[in-house]
Amino acid sequence: MTVHGIFSPTLTPLLPDLRVDIDRLIVHCRWLLANGCHGLALFGTTSEANSFSVAERMDVLDGLVDAGIDPTLFVPGTGMCAIPDAVALTSHAVRLGASGVLMLPPFYYKGVSEDGLFAAYSEVIQRVGDSRLRIYLYHIPPISQVGIPLQLIERLLKAYPDTVAGIKDSSGDWATHEAILDAFPGFGTLTGSEKFLLENLKRGGVGTITAVANVIPDRLRAFYDGWQSMDDADAGAAQDKLNDTRKAMQGYPPVPALKEMMASMRNDPAWRTVRPPLTVLAEGQRVSLMAGMDLGTIG
Amino acid sequence: MTVHGIFSPTLTPLLPDLRVDIDRLIVHCRWLLANGCHGLALFGTTSEANSFSVAERMDVLDGLVDAGIDPTLFVPGTGMCAIPDAVALTSHAVRLGASGVLMLPPFYYKGVSEDGLFAAYSEVIQRVGDSRLRIYLYHIPPISQVGIPLQLIERLLKAYPDTVAGIKDSSGDWATHEAILDAFPGFGTLTGSEKFLLENLKRGGVGTITAVANVIPDRLRAFYDGWQSMDDADAGAAQDKLNDTRKAMQGYPPVPALKEMMASMRNDPAWRTVRPPLTVLAEGQRVSLMAGMDLGTIG
Repeated sequence: MTVHGIFSPTLTPLLPDLRVDIDRLIVHCRWLLANGCHGLALFGTTSEANSFSVAERMDVLDGLVDAGIDPTLFVPGTGMCAIPDAVALTSHAVRLGASGVLMLPPFYYKGVSEDGLFAAYSEVIQRVGDSRLRIYLYHIPPISQVGIPLQLIERLLKAYPDTVAGIKDSSGDWATHEAILDAFPGFGTLTGSEKFLLENLKRGGVGTITAVANVIPDRLRAFYDGWQSMDDADAGAAQDKLNDTRKAMQGYPPVPALKEMMASMRNDPAWRTVRPPLTVLAEGQRVSLMAGMDLGTIG
Repeated sequence: MTVHGIFSPTLTPLLPDLRVDIDRLIVHCRWLLANGCHGLALFGTTSEANSFSVAERMDVLDGLVDAGIDPTLFVPGTGMCAIPDAVALTSHAVRLGASGVLMLPPFYYKGVSEDGLFAAYSEVIQRVGDSRLRIYLYHIPPISQVGIPLQLIERLLKAYPDTVAGIKDSSGDWATHEAILDAFPGFGTLTGSEKFLLENLKRGGVGTITAVANVIPDRLRAFYDGWQSMDDADAGAAQDKLNDTRKAMQGYPPVPALKEMMASMRNDPAWRTVRPPLTVLAEGQRVSLMAGMDLGTIG
């Protein structure tokens, strides 16, 4: 059993002093779930995950649970450079009841061996030592610079068949995504970009964890629920339409752009704040970004 | 005032369960200081810094102080992806009395702006809020993939002239190193490779933080103390000789290779252990590496 559907790598709103704005995050999570998301991939790249300490991330998970949000809907990012950090956050997520975790490989050293990555995942799995753990490997070489080769998936699946449940493939490359889908039927393969969603679903993939699910969860869900009842031409046209948001974001740094979109949709400039090293959009960028966008308003 | 001399990005010995072997580390630090190192750049890239949690790194610093090692000799790495982590570890190092800290920029997001990096360093400096803080910027683009451009150094020096004390340049590129030395006379510019040590010192640089200081601290120190009394030909020949260790390591992963060298010098296989994602050398690599080495034994 793997997760299925539309998952939002949830944006993390911030207070002026850069702490997590848990109140706005609760509101955002509820809105995402009410508007189509099957679950919340908290602490993905879009969430500025690695800009938060382990304690901050644990506090956020606790805060969402305290607010009554169902922890089985969580698939939080828990992969870090240091094994003890990954173990601590993963254990916390599992204890809370998360359906899975999204796990980056250790990403400081570059050019590390497949043996080394296998050993890193093995250490985390064994140290967490919980049969409820379900790991979604996080393949995002454009940012992490450390990827998950097919052979590593194969080894991990062989060693931990009940634990290694799937992968988020953010390679941005169809050939890579296709190779994963072909090599591992039944594996929980999620595309990191909605642009491959139709092909992902047609070939037995389980859905997407995509940045734009923060702003168009309803459209993504409608597509996910509807594509099988469309003919090929209509499904293709619907997929094309789904790509408009990402196209309109092209050339803008994605996290600041998505936060600007939230600020606009909610008429709430507080949403713009990002943690360094990210920076907010300049005024001119804000105007041009939003001029190209077709988004609704919230509230 | 900046640090001067030969600094070891201290290897971190590990117990079989991958915890830090503080007893072996204390012995190693004492040996480094007794054999030529001016100080200890604990938690550099060679130290597997990013493979340890903040708490583990604090415990190590405390353990060394408890063992009677002078904390003014520490220049520990404290830069991390998350500002609160960098603040916590930097504050801890300053409180202990470290002469400086070596600070990576946040390294998860790639292609970030100079404004974003300036903001990241500013946040750490302001949040630490301690006039004793001395930062050595850590420029290691081959690994971090996020570098420190000249303009960033200039802005940081202007904004925090008493705090931003120097840089460790591990670009591996002489043109880059020369540009830093030329642009910022009086800045504490350290080369990340001993291969540029003579030129660094000739042009007003302050020394080196180099991986091979873990195994040849005495040779590096002799060169540092002696180059000014040599004629150009002799100094050049001494520099060439100094490069032999690195040349013999070429083609081997540096941290496992250095740990193998320590294991050999101390006749102590426990020294080989590394944390994933790094892996120990294979038997054949061990043999060929050590066959090309000219190192003494310890103890």
